[in-house]
This record gives sequence, C-alpha cells and structure tokens, in this order.
Amino acid sequence: MLEALKEKVYRANMDLKKYGLILFTWGNASERDPETGLIVIKPSGVEYDEMKPEDMVVVAPDGKIVEGNLRPSSDTPTHLEIYRRHPEIKGIVHTHSTYATAWAQAGLPIPTFGTTHADYFYGDIPCTQDLSEERVKEAYEHYTGVIINETFERRDTLACPACLVKNHGVFTWGTDAADAVYHAVVVEEVAKMAYITLGINPLATRAPQYVSDKHYFRKHGKDAYYGQAKK
Amino acid sequence: MLEALKEKVYRANMDLKKYGLILFTWGNASERDPETGLIVIKPSGVEYDEMKPEDMVVVAPDGKIVEGNLRPSSDTPTHLEIYRRHPEIKGIVHTHSTYATAWAQAGLPIPTFGTTHADYFYGDIPCTQDLSEERVKEAYEHYTGVIINETFERRDTLACPACLVKNHGVFTWGTDAADAVYHAVVVEEVAKMAYITLGINPLATRAPQYVSDKHYFRKHGKDAYYGQAKK
Amino acid sequence: MLEALKEKVYRANMDLKKYGLILFTWGNASERDPETGLIVIKPSGVEYDEMKPEDMVVVAPDGKIVEGNLRPSSDTPTHLEIYRRHPEIKGIVHTHSTYATAWAQAGLPIPTFGTTHADYFYGDIPCTQDLSEERVKEAYEHYTGVIINETFERRDTLACPACLVKNHGVFTWGTDAADAVYHAVVVEEVAKMAYITLGINPLATRAPQYVSDKHYFRKHGKDAYYGQAKK
Amino acid sequence: MLEALKEKVYRANMDLKKYGLILFTWGNASERDPETGLIVIKPSGVEYDEMKPEDMVVVAPDGKIVEGNLRPSSDTPTHLEIYRRHPEIKGIVHTHSTYATAWAQAGLPIPTFGTTHADYFYGDIPCTQDLSEERVKEAYEHYTGVIINETFERRDTLACPACLVKNHGVFTWGTDAADAVYHAVVVEEVAKMAYITLGINPLATRAPQYVSDKHYFRKHGKDAYYGQAKK
Repeated sequence: MLEALKEKVYRANMDLKKYGLILFTWGNASERDPETGLIVIKPSGVEYDEMKPEDMVVVAPDGKIVEGNLRPSSDTPTHLEIYRRHPEIKGIVHTHSTYATAWAQAGLPIPTFGTTHADYFYGDIPCTQDLSEERVKEAYEHYTGVIINETFERRDTLACPACLVKNHGVFTWGTDAADAVYHAVVVEEVAKMAYITLGINPLATRAPQYVSDKHYFRKHGKDAYYGQAKK
Repeated sequence: MLEALKEKVYRANMDLKKYGLILFTWGNASERDPETGLIVIKPSGVEYDEMKPEDMVVVAPDGKIVEGNLRPSSDTPTHLEIYRRHPEIKGIVHTHSTYATAWAQAGLPIPTFGTTHADYFYGDIPCTQDLSEERVKEAYEHYTGVIINETFERRDTLACPACLVKNHGVFTWGTDAADAVYHAVVVEEVAKMAYITLGINPLATRAPQYVSDKHYFRKHGKDAYYGQAKK
Repeated sequence: MLEALKEKVYRANMDLKKYGLILFTWGNASERDPETGLIVIKPSGVEYDEMKPEDMVVVAPDGKIVEGNLRPSSDTPTHLEIYRRHPEIKGIVHTHSTYATAWAQAGLPIPTFGTTHADYFYGDIPCTQDLSEERVKEAYEHYTGVIINETFERRDTLACPACLVKNHGVFTWGTDAADAVYHAVVVEEVAKMAYITLGINPLATRAPQYVSDKHYFRKHGKDAYYGQAKK
Repeated sequence: MLEALKEKVYRANMDLKKYGLILFTWGNASERDPETGLIVIKPSGVEYDEMKPEDMVVVAPDGKIVEGNLRPSSDTPTHLEIYRRHPEIKGIVHTHSTYATAWAQAGLPIPTFGTTHADYFYGDIPCTQDLSEERVKEAYEHYTGVIINETFERRDTLACPACLVKNHGVFTWGTDAADAVYHAVVVEEVAKMAYITLGINPLATRAPQYVSDKHYFRKHGKDAYYGQAKK
C-alpha cells in the first residue's frame, strides 16, 4: 500500500544523508497521505546503505502500525503529535545536524540575522523550553511533539517551518517530506551563519524588520515574485 | 542571440556551485556584452542540475527582457544599477556564501589582515549601511545596487571587486563573469581567514600598509610581476 | 593465524580513515580474540594505502609479538593495559581527531550538552589528569593506559566508551573494533557540537539529567526500544 | 635536465592541491638538487590543472634561470635565501592554508598544546616580526627569507620545520619537497586544533615539556621507536 508515498519518504530520508545532515542512522523523515491520513515513516535504526523503499513503515494517527515488518522510528510519536495538531503540515523531518543542534544545546533561538534566514523563516527560529521530568518519564517522544506545538501556539508553522528542541536537535516540516528536507538543509546553513556572525560580532543585531518582511514576502504569499511563475 | 555569452554566463553560474558558494538556487552571475550593452543573467529559482546555457536571459539596461522564456534573477535590478554606474565592470556575481554573509550579518567590513586579502582587494572589503525603509519598499533590488554604488563613491571598484550588503550577502565583480566568480571564491576564503584570525586574537591588527601595497601592486598595474607575462 | 580477526581489525583501521578521523598514519585500532586472549593491532607508521589485512600484528597480553613481520603500533602498551584491566572491552581505537583532540588539549571533559551525547555516553566524557614526569620517562605508553584506567575507576567503561587523554588525543572502545570505531566517530561529532555550543552560549548548561537518562536508556539496557529487536 | 627532480617537485605541488592547502595558484614547492645545488621550483601563476612536470623551472642559487620557458614562482627569492643559509634544508613549501594563515594574521606563534604538534615540531611554531618598510620596498621576497632565517637564528630548522610569516602565510621545509609538503599538511591541522583549543579554553596551557620531549624523541633521533625500522 501507498507505494508511491513510500518511495517519496525513502527518497527524503536518503536526501538527508546526501546533504550531510545525518550521521549513521540519526534522523528521520515522514509524510502524511492526504487521503487516508496515514503516515509513512522511516524504520528505526536501519542503516541508510541497506534501507529500501519497502522498508518504510505505515502508521495510523494513533500510532498503530498498519503495514511494515520493521519498527517505525522511535520518534514516531513526536511526528504524530505534530501532524495531529497541524493539518497544514504534510511532511516532517528530524535531524541532529551539527550547527542547528548546537543552537538547541545552547538553548537559544536562532536570531534573524539576515536575508538567508528571512527568505525561509519569518522571525527567529524558536527553541523549546525544557520538558518537565514528568513528561519525559510518562511519554517522552509524545511530549516532544506537544512542546513543539506549544512553542508554535501563536505562530504560523508554515511561515517558520522549523523548531529547535532544547538539548536535543531540530524538527522541520513543510508541504511534503521533500519540502521538510529542504528546510532542514536551510536551517543548518542559517544556524552555521548565525554562529559565525556572533563570533565576528557578539553585538550583532537582527536585520531590520522591513528587510526581513521584504525577503520573506518576495518568496511567499500572493505577491511573491521570486522564481518562475507556477503553471 | 549572444550564444557565446550565454555559454560563458552559464559556465560562471555552474562554477559558483562547483566552488561550494551556492546552496540550492541561491546566487547568480551575469555578464555585459561590450558591443550591445545587453546583460545576460541567470534565470530566477532554476535548479542548477537542470539549468542549460539557453536558459540564460538577455536583459536590456532598462530591465526589459530582450530574449528568454524564463524570468531573470530577482536580483537583476541590482546588477543593472551597478553596470549603469560602472562601465568598467563587465561581470557581476551575487552569493550568500557562508563566511562572507556572516560578515555582512555582523555589519562589519572585512579588515585587511593579510596578503591573501591584499593580493586581490586594495583596502578593507566594505559593508553597506542599512537600506532605509522607504528604499526597501519602493524598489528593494534597485536600491541594493544604489547603496553598493554609494559605498564605492570614493573607491576604485576594480581595486576592490567586492561589497558586503548588510544583513544580506556579497556582490563581486570583474572584467567578465568568470573574473567575478574568481573574486567570489577569494572573498569567501578571505572572510573565513579573517573570522578565524579574530578568534585567535581579538586584538589582531591590519597588515602594515606598505605590505598590502607591495602585494597588491606585484599582482596589479604596470609594475606587476606575478604570474606569466601576458602575450 | 586469526585471519578473520585480522580482516576485522584491518577493516576497522580503514574505516577510521574513511570517516575522516585519521591524517597520514595517525591512529590505530585493535581487537582482542575472546578465545586466546591475543590482541590483533595495526602495525606502526604504515601508510593506509599500502596496508593489507596480513600486516596486522598479533600480540600477547604481555606485549610479546606472536606473529607479524612489522612492529605493532607504538601505542600497543596502552591498548594492552586497558584490555588487562577491563575484560568487558573487546576493541580499542586511538585517534587524534580534530575536535576531540582540541578538548583534550583544553584539558576539559566534554559536557553532556545534549541527547546526541547522551545517546552513547552516560555522563561527561572525561579527560585524564597530567601524567607525571616519572611515568612518562619510565613507560609512557603503558602509563597512558594506567591513567585511563584510573580515570574510569568509578565508572562503567561500556556506559562511557571514550576517554580524552590530556594534551594528546582520544581513546574509544567497545564490544569489538568496529564498535570502537563507531564510538570514535560519535565522540568527534559530539566534541564538535559541544565546541560550537560554547561559542554560541558560553553559559550553556548540561541537559537535565532525566533527559540524558531517558536517551541513554532508550538505546541501552533491558528496556531499550530504539532500533530493531535483536533476533 | 634534472627530469627526475622536476617530476618530484611537480608531484609535491600537485599534492598541496590534493591535501586542500591551495586555492587557485596560491602556494609553491621547490627542491634542491644535492649534487649541483640547483633549485627546481613551480612556475608563477600557472593553473594546477594545466601544469606539467616539464613546466618546473630550474634556478641557480643566485636566482638566474638555468632552464625553463616560464617565470619561476614570485616567491623564488624567499626559497633561495632559506636554502642559502640552511644547507640542511632540501625542500621548501609555501602556502596560504586557512588556519596557519589565520595564526600568521593574528601575529602569534602556534603554542605546543599537544602531542600532535610535538610529534613533528619541537617547541612553538614561531611567527616572524614585521618586515620593515625599507626591506619590503628594497627586495620584499628576499627579505621574507631573511626574516625567516633571523627567526630561526637560535633554533634547529629540522626540529621545527615551519615558520609563520606575519600577516602573510606559512613556509615549511624538510629533507625533500615531499617532506616539506607533509609538514605543510601537519602545520595546518595543528593550527586548526590550536584555534579550537583556545575557543574551548582561552586559558589552555602548553603540554608539559616532558610530554612534548617524549613524543618528539620517540619519532626523531637515535632513540626513535615509532614506525618501522629503516632498512
């Protein structure tokens, strides 16, 4: 079932490797089937070299495995909780990419230092608060999704398709798994640039809001004029 | 029309990718045809893997598309404004390369810390002031060119073929598109070295002016003796 | 003798190169044969390009060469001393990988800043004290093993399979040579992330202990649920 | 003439590129013929892709071109001055490798932070003083050699085969051109490690002298025991 979607999710996972965001088996990508609402996700702890499209696991929104011989990613409950709360999200990626994870370990949002950031993320890329001990013990992966949702309670997820999880790593999302992969690559580059910026000038300030607005809206929304006209 | 120039501009854009200065579709290269004054530039938002020489767009100095099925780069007005003011410039490149962009985000010029810098850039590589909100709203890309020109009002563009644009990225130029690419590679390396230099010694000072003079003029001008004699 | 083990140890050494942890001939991997207690180790100072499985040297626990035409790694006494004290260790790796070595040169343990660390290392990755002048002069490589053992006197080696050696480099270990290589790759990535974390936020704090516990124990021990069920 | 030596010098120059120490045409390697005292050196400003062994230039100790259709490296007078003063040096390399050059720009010697350094360099890797304006104007490249020699007046060049040139780059040397290339690779790695070390711990101290002694002398001199016995 969902063979085409499995192929897409497989490809998204392999692209994470290709872009250098993944060491060993760390990280995962998933996508939601718009018709059935089922989620296709990477299996847990399988080597990228040996992974095949048919290894992708099909999971129901409540976490039950619908199809697949392998266990789904241990982060599956996080994906499911984000999908549950956000119907606008169709694909999710999780990585421990080096610079984004360092910001998460520093416990700080990535400031909007420039247009590379503003082209894709409207506003700072937030970092969650600590998960409480109760939540970690009760259902760690589920509550990781909950705290991401809480962090975006007053924000538009598609206007800022990434969230740092404190002391952990980064989740990104988008209109499909490939879009979430794209944002995972961008967030890593933006995280690296922001780190170097602070190294050059610890007092660096954010780009003026009107510059960020200009860049974001020349790429997104009804007045966008970057790229080729969509057919 | 201008098939040979399209091939050159295509090659320059692909070289930006080859040198690792470009992620996805970020960045662009153009060149001016000396006879007609027309500019050939990369199309907007097209994947490098799929780009072909015939996709390059031919634009008139006033911005009208003379030939091409694709939209030109959204940064075209910046290129045009630089070409308009500076007849000595024949090729222009724009990138968000990591270290140069970090300096632009830090809002600081790259100091002439050594001879690697002085071999190609006579003096600090400047960073523009903020664009005003009025300019951003009226014609952002055009005024990005204007503020670069303002930054070089009292400087020789060919003696310092690069300008950081605050909170944005870097523009470089030269005697053709390939020369501008060359300078884009050098500015990134010089930006990286300067960042590391400050990390080692926050009180590092510029190279003595007579050392920078020596290096610059052994490579440029009538008394140059670096490289092979031009035939 | 021990042809299969030689092949494994050869492969582990080549993997160190493949993962970018080794410059020239720096670094070495060994494994202990569970039946005979003999150790198979890389020869000293041989180019990776020219190394063959049959070049691996077989050494007795007392350091005598049992088989091999080449001298064993000059760090062999360190390996032997760790194996002697720790029967649970079956494979050992030594590298001068860039970031781990920088922490060793800084003389500081790598703090548990996040889950990437906690997934593999339970607690900070320790750094040894200085070796005394007497020990260095008497039997440097032997005492390097002794001080690693001293550093782990109250710690479980398999729960923290790495030790920084002050002003020197890093030793990692595991259930075989390949496992030790895996840990050498992880420690380098964790060391890089921790360095960047401090650059972003010099006041960064460790992950809460209950988060580190959660991550470590979802991958290790009887309640682990990461990856596929072992057959 | 000297065809075998040209091949060696060509190979050394190409290896600088292979090890990532060279951007474009920056950097050069030379070797002295022990019988005739002639120096074979890279031509100036020739692309690595197009360079051939027969392009290497043969120069006499006084700088006269003995054979070759191309100009020798513009740094030739520096090489010659080092060779003149130091008969023990048979090969010389000059690069602007990123981290070593950053230390040169910082105007600081690279401290002996660890055994990676001590394995090849006995003591800190020194950085020259500023060249005076008179020297730069009179004969810049010649006096670059002079100031390197002055920096080593009380040091053994073969025990510390590298010198940072303030605000410029690095020169390394050895028993032939390949040996000088080897040291150029090591100095870049050591420079990178030292930079990161300071980033982790700005108060990091040098390795104890007896540790550095141990490492240096287990690789060099009559009591060396690293590597395989020389046949």
